[in-house]
Amino acid sequence: MLAAADELLQREGMAGFTMEGVAALSGASKVTLYKWWATKGVLALEAYSASVNHILSMPDTGDIEADVLAHLKTFVGLLRDTAAGKVTAELLGAAQTDPEMAAAFRRIYLEPRRSIGIRALRAAQERRQIRVDIDLEVVSDQLWGACMYRLLTGWQPLDDAFAGRLVTNVMCGIKPGNGRTLPPAPER
Amino acid sequence: MLAAADELLQREGMAGFTMEGVAALSGASKVTLYKWWATKGVLALEAYSASVNHILSMPDTGDIEADVLAHLKTFVGLLRDTAAGKVTAELLGAAQTDPEMAAAFRRIYLEPRRSIGIRALRAAQERRQIRVDIDLEVVSDQLWGACMYRLLTGWQPLDDAFAGRLVTNVMCGIKPGNGRTLPPAPER
Repeated sequence: MLAAADELLQREGMAGFTMEGVAALSGASKVTLYKWWATKGVLALEAYSASVNHILSMPDTGDIEADVLAHLKTFVGLLRDTAAGKVTAELLGAAQTDPEMAAAFRRIYLEPRRSIGIRALRAAQERRQIRVDIDLEVVSDQLWGACMYRLLTGWQPLDDAFAGRLVTNVMCGIKPGNGRTLPPAPER
Repeated sequence: MLAAADELLQREGMAGFTMEGVAALSGASKVTLYKWWATKGVLALEAYSASVNHILSMPDTGDIEADVLAHLKTFVGLLRDTAAGKVTAELLGAAQTDPEMAAAFRRIYLEPRRSIGIRALRAAQERRQIRVDIDLEVVSDQLWGACMYRLLTGWQPLDDAFAGRLVTNVMCGIKPGNGRTLPPAPER
C-alpha cells in the first residue's frame, strides 16, 4: 500500500493524490487504507518518507565536512531531479493551513530525517571537529533548512555548488581571515 | 484598500481572506478590487508586503554583524509575536500548489525584502568585512531563509538566541580555531 501510495504521489503530486487512487492502484479497499492512515496527508507522508529513507543515509568517513557535503549533494539532487522536490514542498505547504498535517510532517518526515544529520554533527562535535558550544539544531537549519527554503521559494538554483557553499560558510565562516581565504576547489 | 486587506489578513489568515471581505471593509467594490489585483493571493501579498516594509528596514552602523543581528531579531520577533508569521507561512504554503501565487510571492514579497539583506551584505563585502569570494545569496538563505524554515516547520523556537547563533555560525564558522571559541555574550 505504501509503494502504491508513493507511486501515485510521485506521478500526480498532492493535487491528484486520493485514497480512491491508492485503493485502485494497490488493490486494498478504502476501509483498509483508512484503518491504517487517518488522512490522505498522513498516508502521503509515510509513503514519501519510506521511499527516500534509503537514498538519504549519511556517509561516515570520519570527516564531517566531506560527509555532510556528500549528503547535501544527494539531498539537493533528489529535490531537483525527482518528483521528491515537488512532493516535499507540497506536503510542507499543506502543513501551513492544516495543523494535523503540520504535526504529521514533523513526526513522520522531519524528525527521523533531521536526527540523521544531528547525529552525525554530534559525533563530529565529540571528535572536536565542531566546537562544543555550537547548537547543532541551528546548524541543521543552515544546511538542510536552507536547501528546503531554496526549494520552496524557487529563487536560486539547487545545485552542487550551492551545497558546497552552504558547508563552507558554516564550517569556516565568511569573515576574512577565518578558515579558507579562497573558494574551495570544486568537489564533484 | 491595502490597509483593509492587511487588516483582514492579520485577523483571519488566508482561510478567511476573500475579495468580498476586503470590499466590505474598505468600501471599494469587488469590480474595483479585481481591476487592481487579479487574484486574492496577489492582493494579500501586496497588502502584507506594504505593512511589514517599514518594520523591516536594515540598520546601517557600518558593522555588518551587528546590523544583520539587529535585523534578524526584528524579523524573528515579527514572525513569532504578530500575525505576520502565520500570514507569511500561509502565503508561501499556498505558493507550493499555485504557480501564479509562487511567481507573485517571489516578485511582490521575496525580491524586495531579500534585496535589502543582499545590499547590506554587499556593502560589507566592499568594506572587506566579508570575503570577496562569498556568494551572498547563499548567506541570505542561511540567515533569513533559516528563520523562514524554522517558522514553516515549527520545529524549534524562533527567538533572539537563534538569531544570534545564525549570525555567529555564518560569520565565524563552527570549526574549532575559527572566529570565537566561546559563545557570544547575550546580545539583547
